[in-house]
Amino acid sequence: VRAPDLIARKRDGGELTADELEWLVSGYLAGAVSEGQIAALLMAGVLRGFTPEEARALTDVFVASGESVDLSVLDGPTIDKHSTGGVGDATTLLVAPLLAAAGARLVKLSGRGLGHTGGTLDKLEAIPGMRVDLSPAELLDVAREVGCVVAAQSAALVPADKAIYALRDVTATVAAPALIASSVMAKKLAAGAQTIVLDVKAGDGAFLPTVDAAVDLAQLCVTIGAEAGRRCSALVTAMDTPLGRAIGNAVEVAECATLLSAPPAGRLAEVALELAATALTLATGADDARARLERCWSSGAALERLAAMIAAQGGDAGVCDDPAGVLPAAPVVLPVLADRAGVVAALPARAVGELAAALGAGRARKDDAVDPAVGIVLEVDVGDEVARGDRLATVHARSDTAAEAAAERLRALVVLSDGPVAPPPTVLRRIG
Amino acid sequence: VRAPDLIARKRDGGELTADELEWLVSGYLAGAVSEGQIAALLMAGVLRGFTPEEARALTDVFVASGESVDLSVLDGPTIDKHSTGGVGDATTLLVAPLLAAAGARLVKLSGRGLGHTGGTLDKLEAIPGMRVDLSPAELLDVAREVGCVVAAQSAALVPADKAIYALRDVTATVAAPALIASSVMAKKLAAGAQTIVLDVKAGDGAFLPTVDAAVDLAQLCVTIGAEAGRRCSALVTAMDTPLGRAIGNAVEVAECATLLSAPPAGRLAEVALELAATALTLATGADDARARLERCWSSGAALERLAAMIAAQGGDAGVCDDPAGVLPAAPVVLPVLADRAGVVAALPARAVGELAAALGAGRARKDDAVDPAVGIVLEVDVGDEVARGDRLATVHARSDTAAEAAAERLRALVVLSDGPVAPPPTVLRRIG
Repeated sequence: VRAPDLIARKRDGGELTADELEWLVSGYLAGAVSEGQIAALLMAGVLRGFTPEEARALTDVFVASGESVDLSVLDGPTIDKHSTGGVGDATTLLVAPLLAAAGARLVKLSGRGLGHTGGTLDKLEAIPGMRVDLSPAELLDVAREVGCVVAAQSAALVPADKAIYALRDVTATVAAPALIASSVMAKKLAAGAQTIVLDVKAGDGAFLPTVDAAVDLAQLCVTIGAEAGRRCSALVTAMDTPLGRAIGNAVEVAECATLLSAPPAGRLAEVALELAATALTLATGADDARARLERCWSSGAALERLAAMIAAQGGDAGVCDDPAGVLPAAPVVLPVLADRAGVVAALPARAVGELAAALGAGRARKDDAVDPAVGIVLEVDVGDEVARGDRLATVHARSDTAAEAAAERLRALVVLSDGPVAPPPTVLRRIG
Repeated sequence: VRAPDLIARKRDGGELTADELEWLVSGYLAGAVSEGQIAALLMAGVLRGFTPEEARALTDVFVASGESVDLSVLDGPTIDKHSTGGVGDATTLLVAPLLAAAGARLVKLSGRGLGHTGGTLDKLEAIPGMRVDLSPAELLDVAREVGCVVAAQSAALVPADKAIYALRDVTATVAAPALIASSVMAKKLAAGAQTIVLDVKAGDGAFLPTVDAAVDLAQLCVTIGAEAGRRCSALVTAMDTPLGRAIGNAVEVAECATLLSAPPAGRLAEVALELAATALTLATGADDARARLERCWSSGAALERLAAMIAAQGGDAGVCDDPAGVLPAAPVVLPVLADRAGVVAALPARAVGELAAALGAGRARKDDAVDPAVGIVLEVDVGDEVARGDRLATVHARSDTAAEAAAERLRALVVLSDGPVAPPPTVLRRIG
């Protein structure tokens, strides 16, 4: 086998066997296949396409390259959840305690934010004392005691995926459905849960702009999960508008704590409930999953599980009762007021996410630090009527200059129209 | 400027500016742009295409990356010649002394063979004592004294092309017309001749199988040459059948010496004369170039210039009068006889080239050694009638086993038919 011949086959639209993909990827890790050869193969695959069989084979190669988490020691159904990344999307902080309150075990290994999308680990680390780097034993202990745990992925899992992803990131070869699916599903399979629910975002603020592309990716992921013997479903959800009202780290934690202290309301709550209900139905066969989860929410049981998880991971659980008293506050808080009356017609997710990242809530490069305190809190949603002078949003910033620039940009981003506007959708498609 | 953004633009079918290409290539040489990033860019370019403007810009970047040869110290018109590589294609050994005999100065920096195609340096090195690694001063001395010189390209020329070509070679990204044209033309521009004639092969044994692809490449090269202020023309010539009768190193040198000792005859002589005449016409404006060159050939002046060049480069010039007495001989020489009567309908160039390479005349990898003595001499051409038992070819091999295997394979490769067959064409198109 010669690497150039395999690359040429993909370049010419052919297919590689599982053995050939394994040979290339392990050769890359071992130094026998060069970075340039893998990069050329990835670009050929982005432009010519990888088949579902190739995606499955890559997933297997990635899983086999490292350790896997053994969740069989836990009682109760084990569940994992993955999102392709959105703006104002703190669903994990709701889904995890909801499923724990309903008797399942959610063990989620999460990532950090990059670009305009936020990352769950960054949000959790806004809570004073919170630890996300847990040992394998600690991970299982928290899952066993609390019912849910959200931690950083160990370096021992899917090292081949990490190496390939790092190369994709710098070679403009991220955007191939099979590469995305194999990277996502390898992480999920190695993380050990028997049930996997995927939230594939579609829209302006998502990695995939069109619903069709999101459905294709979701279908591919679900097939890979099912063939690996897992229960796997996906929701394609809308990401043209930020999902929650808060976009930032502390502000999103505060929003989740506040949401869980009252009956569920709003789009963020709706998507979280649907993801949790999908997972619980898959995992237990229950036909009343959604109703049970709503009871767990309204009774305060989910909020109590969130507090228990935070406490078990070293964080200040007081954040659940008094977010503002516990979370770091930005020194400058500036309201953004409507300069005319109208109906909110659009809150473009990507631009709002980029604005929050520019305030310091996100990172342009992987090793940048994030500012936990800054961000944006929207005070209106698409479809809301506003009068001149009404508050559209609040900017939480590190300086007056940053706050004013963000407020001006945000006012321009909020599209006001005169006619009535339908509220944004939530779940667009269900797969698996 | 970020490399991934430039790669993404090419991936999506866009165009890069001259400054952007310069930034990427010099960044690669300096280590700031990674091998993977250049490989991804190259594959995107192979699949999406580079524009003629990008080809010109890459040519400039390659030339500017190193030194150039200054031929202005030479009297008489300076000419260079390039072939995209063929089988049984020793035209340089004919064109160089022909042009020298006609009063021009041919300075050719040549390469080695790879795969099924031969290389001029390998052929010259079959001559005892012959040196192809000449210093810049030696190169000019031989050109001045003899009128022609064929030597290895100095490492100081087009280092960026060398680095990019080495990467293309291992990443299956050789086959993009703009990449081929920029690599070829950068070498020719840096080598300093005012007139450049290109032999772009088309057919089964050529790098480009179709005439259309060869015409496109020739047109691109000629345009790049003209825009750089050189006189530049190209011939597209047929490479479905080996051009000469000999395929190997010593056997091709012997064929050229023998050809030059009698009036021109056969396809190899025809292509060499056409290339030389095209160059001489371009360089001098002469309208009788072909007739002058035929006189230089038939008078023995060209053979005398070949002997002078060989002597000036340290080789045994006796090879011109007595090839068999001077050149290394293979220990096993085995005739291949026709097992039926018929008309030779095909001598597939690529397969014959691969067979000669397998005997040891060529190399699979760049650092393999070649065996100067081995090869194949065809005794018939396409269109010839043969009787059962007639000699089709002679195999020159290192061992009985190798000779017998090659003879058997060769007998199977020579296609015999019953009807009349037209002789193969030579020059298919003229560009510029």
